[in-house]
Amino acid sequence: MTATHERPLRTAEVIAVGSELLGSTRLDTNSLFIADQLSAIGIELRSKSVVGDSRELIADLCRQALSRVDLVVMTGGLGPTDDDLTRDAVSAAVGRPLIEHQDIVEHIAARFARRNLQMPEINRRQAHVLEGAVVLANPNGTAPGQYLEHGEKVVVLLPGPPRELQPMLTLLCEGALGARAARDRIYRTSLFVTGRGESHVEEIAQPFYSVWRSEQAPIETTILATPGQIELHLSLRSSDAAAAAGRLRDASSALVAALGGDVFSVDGRPMEELVGAMLRERHLTIAAAESCTGGLMMSRLTDVPGSSEYVVGGLVLYSNELKTKVGLVPASLIAAHGAVSEPVAVAMAEGVRERTGADVCVAITGIAGPGGGTPQKPVGTACLAVLVPSAPARVRTASVFGNRTQFKFNAAQAALDMVRRALGG
Amino acid sequence: MTATHERPLRTAEVIAVGSELLGSTRLDTNSLFIADQLSAIGIELRSKSVVGDSRELIADLCRQALSRVDLVVMTGGLGPTDDDLTRDAVSAAVGRPLIEHQDIVEHIAARFARRNLQMPEINRRQAHVLEGAVVLANPNGTAPGQYLEHGEKVVVLLPGPPRELQPMLTLLCEGALGARAARDRIYRTSLFVTGRGESHVEEIAQPFYSVWRSEQAPIETTILATPGQIELHLSLRSSDAAAAAGRLRDASSALVAALGGDVFSVDGRPMEELVGAMLRERHLTIAAAESCTGGLMMSRLTDVPGSSEYVVGGLVLYSNELKTKVGLVPASLIAAHGAVSEPVAVAMAEGVRERTGADVCVAITGIAGPGGGTPQKPVGTACLAVLVPSAPARVRTASVFGNRTQFKFNAAQAALDMVRRALGG
Repeated sequence: MTATHERPLRTAEVIAVGSELLGSTRLDTNSLFIADQLSAIGIELRSKSVVGDSRELIADLCRQALSRVDLVVMTGGLGPTDDDLTRDAVSAAVGRPLIEHQDIVEHIAARFARRNLQMPEINRRQAHVLEGAVVLANPNGTAPGQYLEHGEKVVVLLPGPPRELQPMLTLLCEGALGARAARDRIYRTSLFVTGRGESHVEEIAQPFYSVWRSEQAPIETTILATPGQIELHLSLRSSDAAAAAGRLRDASSALVAALGGDVFSVDGRPMEELVGAMLRERHLTIAAAESCTGGLMMSRLTDVPGSSEYVVGGLVLYSNELKTKVGLVPASLIAAHGAVSEPVAVAMAEGVRERTGADVCVAITGIAGPGGGTPQKPVGTACLAVLVPSAPARVRTASVFGNRTQFKFNAAQAALDMVRRALGG
Repeated sequence: MTATHERPLRTAEVIAVGSELLGSTRLDTNSLFIADQLSAIGIELRSKSVVGDSRELIADLCRQALSRVDLVVMTGGLGPTDDDLTRDAVSAAVGRPLIEHQDIVEHIAARFARRNLQMPEINRRQAHVLEGAVVLANPNGTAPGQYLEHGEKVVVLLPGPPRELQPMLTLLCEGALGARAARDRIYRTSLFVTGRGESHVEEIAQPFYSVWRSEQAPIETTILATPGQIELHLSLRSSDAAAAAGRLRDASSALVAALGGDVFSVDGRPMEELVGAMLRERHLTIAAAESCTGGLMMSRLTDVPGSSEYVVGGLVLYSNELKTKVGLVPASLIAAHGAVSEPVAVAMAEGVRERTGADVCVAITGIAGPGGGTPQKPVGTACLAVLVPSAPARVRTASVFGNRTQFKFNAAQAALDMVRRALGG
């Protein structure tokens, strides 16, 4: 299984099986994990497909993939029912019979027995293994995986549920697949930027990566606009881990120098985790008074394990009455400036500081839409305030992009970014 | 383009072009929209694939798809750069040359001119149209789409950005594609269930749908476990809209009768929207005191447009000190029962009622993990309380499933579901 004289595996296709993945309600997310794992051992994903529960079509796609790439990863369709056709289809595609493994039958029967159940006859199907394939144990389910060396090519069959697929593939990449991969690996790094548009980031970054791309071992750069941030992903194929890390570090530093303080993450950590780490390091607590974001900023901060060390809590002040009653914002201030205004944002931050005693206090008030906009304060207007210890209040009005849920995310992102900058990040 | 004598289009494949879609950071979400639109005109999606920017591979996949299905939808790769290979690849696959359309060149040049820019020469590429194809206008970008009748088959080229693709495909389904589709359509309905596991729902629903599936015009049923709910999706192919709607209504009613009050939605509306509609109908306001969910429940309620009519606001009481100081929970109660306990949940709900005066008050306190669990109160424990006008407090302790972010979502879902039941939903 690990002979080193064979041609290394360099290219792969993934075929996800399951009619449910073709509807409009479910995405194949396994392929992201697979792309990542394969990339880490230097195997490039060339294409991926999703196919319904049709034996002929699955076999057809498997056969075509084998004609194009070194490794074909099939996911799903390994259950016990009539819909589970992957074993049969691959058997037809590679021209190898399925053989019932008695030890797998016993293993599955034992799983049922532990729950005082008798194994249904249909589960025998899960013990059918391609001739010549290695069986991959599945501690989290009944369907074992299969690893087949077929000439110079490899076919892998993995179960669909992520918690069954992931440990199986991880072991395989450390073992048989890793041994069959090329000596060079793909190394990656990323930078997250906020407060600038994609084209602006591209304009600054493009002169750098057009040079890197033309070098002998090129650094590939991808720019992605995702909610609340622009991401630059750099990757490099190399057989020298230290040299690759060094080049990526230099490239990352060059981009940071060019993009300045708008780069908030160089290690893939999201904004809420970064701000949390800064608060923890500085032994500061945080609280927020949120109107238009409805609690989303606090919720994001508390997505991070251990956030109870620095998150105190906060106020969701959706109605104007609550802004006054609970948030301690003078009604006269709202009457004079409107609820979406810089003075009210500052008063909300002061109110939540008064209520909670937190070191860092944030306030967000804005117009999420679709209704509520005016010519002076259109939908997308957000007033943000941040108080940090012994410094004047910071306040700004931002034009935030997106529909209602995007607006909420982006306004929370802008507020967290103000905290980051206020803490010197 | 709309001749009715041709064989109707019944099957389709989607091919999404773009190396960035093969990484681990981005999913092809266009295919969900496409599946939905095609399904509405009775065209079944047989498979979908994502392919990198390789002319040969794109052509290969296009050719193979054309040999299998009636309609091939290509998305992306219509930009002006060297990476944009869809036009060339399809030209090779169908054996038709590309012809430069002068009117498109002028249209693109005019778009640039409006921004006082000269059109770069590379943009001419976007005016290259497959011989015999109909050009699809793109009001939201420079790349036009293309619609090609190729023998009895159809190939459609659409730009990748959703805001360009979606209006173009919608028009096409109303127009040329709709006219070429079969007379029968696919009709759908769904039921969302909460508070029961997938296998329990399946056990109850299976006897119904095994009958429906065997009928002459079968109703297909899919069961999906998604965050916070189990979804049953029913679909039916029919040429009679009224009859199909009637059968789906009857099927839905039968499932509702069998599953009882655990069915919370029969029209696709999510929990926060349903609870919001109930509050609006009953002229009630809502507020919450959230600990472990960090504001997520309030945030979800405020995701719904118009929620300011009934959402007052609330308190995020992450620390115990804040539970007492802001949430008015007696410190002795926390000392006696622990912060995660039913008495504290009720006191939090009473505290937020005292602070806000809202009609409906909800409290959530629990252990999201990964740390903080004990043998008596393991990670996943959530105590939930709901106060509605003139009724005793409702309180329960739930075992909530999932990692930290799943726990938060599921705990908020369980609390919203308590509100729904308390309001008689």
